[in-house]
Amino acid sequence: MQRTRIGIVGYGNLGRGTEEAVRRQEDMELVAVFTRRDPEHVKTASGVPVVRVDEADAWRDRIDVMILCGGSATDLPEQGPAFAAKFHTVDSFDTHARIPEYFGAVDAAARASGHVSVISAGWDPGLFSLNRLLFEAVLPRGETYTFWGKGVSQGHSDAIRRVPGVKAGVQYTIPKEEAVNRVRAGERPQLSTRDKHLRECFVVAEEGADKARIERDIVTMPHYFADYDTVVHFIDEEELRRNHSAMPHGGVVLRSGQTGEDTGQLMEFSLRLGSNPEFTASVLVACARAVHRFAREGVTGAKTMFDIPFAYLSPKSPEELRAELL
Amino acid sequence: MQRTRIGIVGYGNLGRGTEEAVRRQEDMELVAVFTRRDPEHVKTASGVPVVRVDEADAWRDRIDVMILCGGSATDLPEQGPAFAAKFHTVDSFDTHARIPEYFGAVDAAARASGHVSVISAGWDPGLFSLNRLLFEAVLPRGETYTFWGKGVSQGHSDAIRRVPGVKAGVQYTIPKEEAVNRVRAGERPQLSTRDKHLRECFVVAEEGADKARIERDIVTMPHYFADYDTVVHFIDEEELRRNHSAMPHGGVVLRSGQTGEDTGQLMEFSLRLGSNPEFTASVLVACARAVHRFAREGVTGAKTMFDIPFAYLSPKSPEELRAELL
Repeated sequence: MQRTRIGIVGYGNLGRGTEEAVRRQEDMELVAVFTRRDPEHVKTASGVPVVRVDEADAWRDRIDVMILCGGSATDLPEQGPAFAAKFHTVDSFDTHARIPEYFGAVDAAARASGHVSVISAGWDPGLFSLNRLLFEAVLPRGETYTFWGKGVSQGHSDAIRRVPGVKAGVQYTIPKEEAVNRVRAGERPQLSTRDKHLRECFVVAEEGADKARIERDIVTMPHYFADYDTVVHFIDEEELRRNHSAMPHGGVVLRSGQTGEDTGQLMEFSLRLGSNPEFTASVLVACARAVHRFAREGVTGAKTMFDIPFAYLSPKSPEELRAELL
Repeated sequence: MQRTRIGIVGYGNLGRGTEEAVRRQEDMELVAVFTRRDPEHVKTASGVPVVRVDEADAWRDRIDVMILCGGSATDLPEQGPAFAAKFHTVDSFDTHARIPEYFGAVDAAARASGHVSVISAGWDPGLFSLNRLLFEAVLPRGETYTFWGKGVSQGHSDAIRRVPGVKAGVQYTIPKEEAVNRVRAGERPQLSTRDKHLRECFVVAEEGADKARIERDIVTMPHYFADYDTVVHFIDEEELRRNHSAMPHGGVVLRSGQTGEDTGQLMEFSLRLGSNPEFTASVLVACARAVHRFAREGVTGAKTMFDIPFAYLSPKSPEELRAELL
């Protein structure tokens, strides 16, 4: 078997998770990691070469699919189209509002150069999106609900850390069990932002800081916390490191629908993730397999997980899939 | 918009569910129902024409996709290949062990005549299969578990009714909560047949029948009940009709896997269905949309849900899907 040769761009949590995920796939091999840092100072867990990102061109014949592991704020808007012009790519672009624009930029670059790119892969956008689509296609009459958590939100954790007097902090998004249970019971409730999620913050205050004021600043912060029930716990640095350095996440997509006159039907997809970046990486790697198949078929342009037949995600042959998994 | 013109072959529970599901899809219209019964004696809920199944040929220009709603034991092995030779089709063939053989027969007929057929659609095989594939592609290291129920098993209900002295009966397959919870907790247990499901029977005995003997005959029946914990309740006909005439079903597919050194990851897909045939019909109808798209692209041969990009299941355009659901 000819293995799919993978390159990784960016060696943060997601890049390291991707390295690990590739190692678990027998039909893939990791070729190199590309970084904007000085390669001298980056050591990969697997020992593959570390290359300056601006020297990636020289690797075009040695890499089948490049997995872009940068962030959506500044890395991918630039790297997505740039790499699509030279490689088949997969990325996890997750700024929902800017997806159409990003898709257009990557699509143009990939088409012009004859490459194929799967954008916005992962779990949301990604697996959750697939289920939202599936659920409403099967049950056109009904309501779809997405709950996130329990998990760490980087954006909200960053927001806490910008409050004066805060030394460090982590924010968990937590679905309100009562709301999830009402949906599961088939109620189809109208849920406000406050009804759906709780925000729980673990904060390390600077010495002598006014904790009452910090708490008030957090819970009243517009956009981030004001529309939610927010709980603030003050803890010390040791506890933060011991209990809050993992990156769990997850959530659930539900559709409560109806067939016939009034027959209730409930569809549910859920994830409970010990590590958000490691899981996201695992999805990207399965998508890299699909990208390689698209490439061999001569498909070009930008794609999303909506465009991937699930057979393309698996290393098994169509015959094996039908016999073993159907 | 040109609507997809649907024909239904077979007007039992699944056929009626399909009629109802088509009505809910704005981009589809039901054209006719085909039956082996005397059309004089079949009245459709929607009022569409009822046609003898052997006169279907005359409808080739008026139907885009034929949804085959017969059973897997005797109807589909004959009708699947026969209709694939003349129409684009969707069916719910669900005899797992015979899927490769059935696929081959439909594939040959469809290829020879330039048609496309999605076989074995529904929820298991179907949505559960898709999730089994997805889960192991994303988490190659882990265990997949499928639990069915709570729901009526037709095969087991039929088996009860064959026991001497039994007038009527219904059997529910019920997942053992303890087993499901162990999987959800990340234990990855080895589960025997008895560990996974309980079988609960509601039986109407003939007058004067020996209930102790009936119960013994049921719980010791090889293949069907002997390997399970089975509970038998004797009830009267009135109670059977009142409480056990619905066809609920459902179940859950779980994968408990691992990334990195020992990070637990849990993926779960579940259904709670008020009506098994109405839900299965809803899946078939979404697949009919995909079949029509395949047909317009010139794709031929047999396919399964593994071969369908989810975008093809939705009436929305790729742009709408990316903007609204990704």
